[in-house]
Amino acid sequence: MTAETTAPDAQAARVEPFDAVDVIRTKRDRGTLSDEQIDWVIDAYTRGVVAERQMAALAMAILLNGMERREIVRWTDAMIASGERMDFSALSRPTADKHSTGGVGDKITLPLAPLVASFGVAVPQLSGRGLGHTGGTLDKLEAICGWRADLTNAEMMAQLESVGAVICAAGAGLAPADKKLYALRDVTGTVEAIPLIASSIMSKKIAEGTASLVLDVKTGAGAFMRDEADARELARTMVDLGNDAGVSTVALLTDMSAPLGLTVGNALEVRESIEVLAGGGPADVVELTVALAREMLAAAGQPDADVEAALADGRAMDTWRAMISAQGGDVDAPLPVARHTEEVRATADGVVTGLDAMAVGVAGWRLGAGRSRPGEAVQAGAGVELHRTIGDSVRAGDLLATLHTDTPERFGRSLEAIDGAWTITADGSAAPRRIVLDRIA
Amino acid sequence: MTAETTAPDAQAARVEPFDAVDVIRTKRDRGTLSDEQIDWVIDAYTRGVVAERQMAALAMAILLNGMERREIVRWTDAMIASGERMDFSALSRPTADKHSTGGVGDKITLPLAPLVASFGVAVPQLSGRGLGHTGGTLDKLEAICGWRADLTNAEMMAQLESVGAVICAAGAGLAPADKKLYALRDVTGTVEAIPLIASSIMSKKIAEGTASLVLDVKTGAGAFMRDEADARELARTMVDLGNDAGVSTVALLTDMSAPLGLTVGNALEVRESIEVLAGGGPADVVELTVALAREMLAAAGQPDADVEAALADGRAMDTWRAMISAQGGDVDAPLPVARHTEEVRATADGVVTGLDAMAVGVAGWRLGAGRSRPGEAVQAGAGVELHRTIGDSVRAGDLLATLHTDTPERFGRSLEAIDGAWTITADGSAAPRRIVLDRIA
Repeated sequence: MTAETTAPDAQAARVEPFDAVDVIRTKRDRGTLSDEQIDWVIDAYTRGVVAERQMAALAMAILLNGMERREIVRWTDAMIASGERMDFSALSRPTADKHSTGGVGDKITLPLAPLVASFGVAVPQLSGRGLGHTGGTLDKLEAICGWRADLTNAEMMAQLESVGAVICAAGAGLAPADKKLYALRDVTGTVEAIPLIASSIMSKKIAEGTASLVLDVKTGAGAFMRDEADARELARTMVDLGNDAGVSTVALLTDMSAPLGLTVGNALEVRESIEVLAGGGPADVVELTVALAREMLAAAGQPDADVEAALADGRAMDTWRAMISAQGGDVDAPLPVARHTEEVRATADGVVTGLDAMAVGVAGWRLGAGRSRPGEAVQAGAGVELHRTIGDSVRAGDLLATLHTDTPERFGRSLEAIDGAWTITADGSAAPRRIVLDRIA
Repeated sequence: MTAETTAPDAQAARVEPFDAVDVIRTKRDRGTLSDEQIDWVIDAYTRGVVAERQMAALAMAILLNGMERREIVRWTDAMIASGERMDFSALSRPTADKHSTGGVGDKITLPLAPLVASFGVAVPQLSGRGLGHTGGTLDKLEAICGWRADLTNAEMMAQLESVGAVICAAGAGLAPADKKLYALRDVTGTVEAIPLIASSIMSKKIAEGTASLVLDVKTGAGAFMRDEADARELARTMVDLGNDAGVSTVALLTDMSAPLGLTVGNALEVRESIEVLAGGGPADVVELTVALAREMLAAAGQPDADVEAALADGRAMDTWRAMISAQGGDVDAPLPVARHTEEVRATADGVVTGLDAMAVGVAGWRLGAGRSRPGEAVQAGAGVELHRTIGDSVRAGDLLATLHTDTPERFGRSLEAIDGAWTITADGSAAPRRIVLDRIA
């Protein structure tokens, strides 16, 4: 019944060296794809010869049947080959890059990039916008008056040379196959395939041409990989891919059961980031910023850099101001504030022993801090400000959080989401929160 | 990253009760689909709300993770509900239907339908055209001058009442979801999912409204299900589906390692069918025709019908002539003959102990008897005429087969396909070929 898709006669009518159905069947039947099959399927998909429905079936087969390390390496290479590559070798500074798998309240890129750059390292952070319950780095910075995300390659290189830190929009030229495949996976239930996640992230990072890379792989309720074993496998896969490609790569496995810091939302997170750069800020945000900075600086040849000193003495803040200004941002302008607030209060006495990151993320998203569809506008001032987090004592009636939005009709569903996010245990106590769970190199 | 596809906010913007990604994830994660999910996904796919790429991912997840019996029943019901149903209950004759999973040289429908109808039973055979190495029943009959495949429902009912036997094109109205899904599966490597094959076949048969159904499930090199265990599972699944739906259903598991009969190709197979109706014909074709006729007649209340007598005394032939004439066919016109022939000769002495059905099927297809793409024209006279089959003694130089085509440039690749199809063993002997391997009720 299906011989037309595999038979030599049908093949002969085409110039393509492979047939998409054969490639799909190979993975479906738990075989391994050859290098030539992988190169072809990524290229043919980019050209539109392999149809969306065919790639959807292949992605599901990969999700369910897995890929060998060799296949993942080749798949990543093929995605890199689908687009342009960048080259930072002309810079006078060493480069160090960082990627986070994303979480609720994860504003770490904001203090981290200028902090590391303040040691003379070039930190290119090609970032994206948010979708769903996790915010996007560009959305956060766009809360700053005048700041622009889109730079030309020449502008980016000049800023890396002069300031050291750049956070900007990733151009469409890097790994276009990944862009197309990611959009497909998003609507076909195939996002959670570890080989595809790893190759998606690493193809862009390798194409960017950084010399070193630190990965922040999150696990827990608010993370994309809730299960620690999955997060660990993803981290291992990406570290191997990076090192195989000549990028010195390490991963930190970090906790995302509770939100990072006390703010979720664009301007709110910028404010908290500035607190960290001023030597203050929540302990967990500082801890993770410092841990990642140490890894990046070690990879850039400065294992003994005094990271805390650069936060304390204003060097990191100076680099932040230079970085924001270079992209048109007014560092002295007040940050946007939402027009309406609503309070969430405790209904019992006790100690906060849990705070559900997903619930807080969804609440912030529903307040207008995130988007449901690509291209949707976000509210700069919307979000959640937490007043009690894990380990804090509370009494009934205490303020747990303030919700912010410009559109008060959003409060109802946001309150629904955040209801029950705090686990308050009478006479309870919470062990100090560990942020960095493991290091994978 | 994918929260937008599952989050209540995104849902609220739609009127759909489910989200395709949730349905895909359920099956991907080895869950069972609810009745409501199945009804929705089939209906929404038919309406275009569930996209082709989403159904492709779901089909692959079903192929790899399977379906429970309850899910298959509901999936079949949902496909039936996507279109119209037929009703044969107004006929004065009992109805008996037959379906074959298809094989090389499988012309059984041609003698079988008039044979069974000659006992006063209504035999509706809504058939298709061929694709790939197995021919289509309609293609074969279209070799008869004037015969037309397309009948209105009223014409079909009138012919069932008057002649008893109808072989015609299935209308687009029966299970349109299946038509769309089959085309998708064909290009996404998801044809071989037993739950989807079973529901595809049975949704159409149940929608046709027959009282009883005999399935011919083939296994071996020339069959769609090469592996006997798979064929057996398919047969069992279909028998259960039919009986659950109130259609008295049995299956014969039959051998398709070698071609059925001595001809492969449209007019060639009509000729051989007429030989059977005239009381002659190859033993294997007669054996299978008689076995299936007995099952159909037993289901229609005539377990003791003397089937061989109806072949020997011309009753089946009379019904054949009436059936062909009723659809405009000239039963006395000579059958088309291809303009060119080529011979295949033995290169060794011995006994034929194997004859590869797939090789013969591909050879016939390449000669022009089949099509590579839907809608392509086929040659009425093209095909393979076998002169030696399993159990025959041969000497080097003996004629093994004659290839027929109107386009002699096709001989080269056809000879390539058929080369080595015969296994000739010196001093060998072949056990008598068993056609019916098992009966599954």
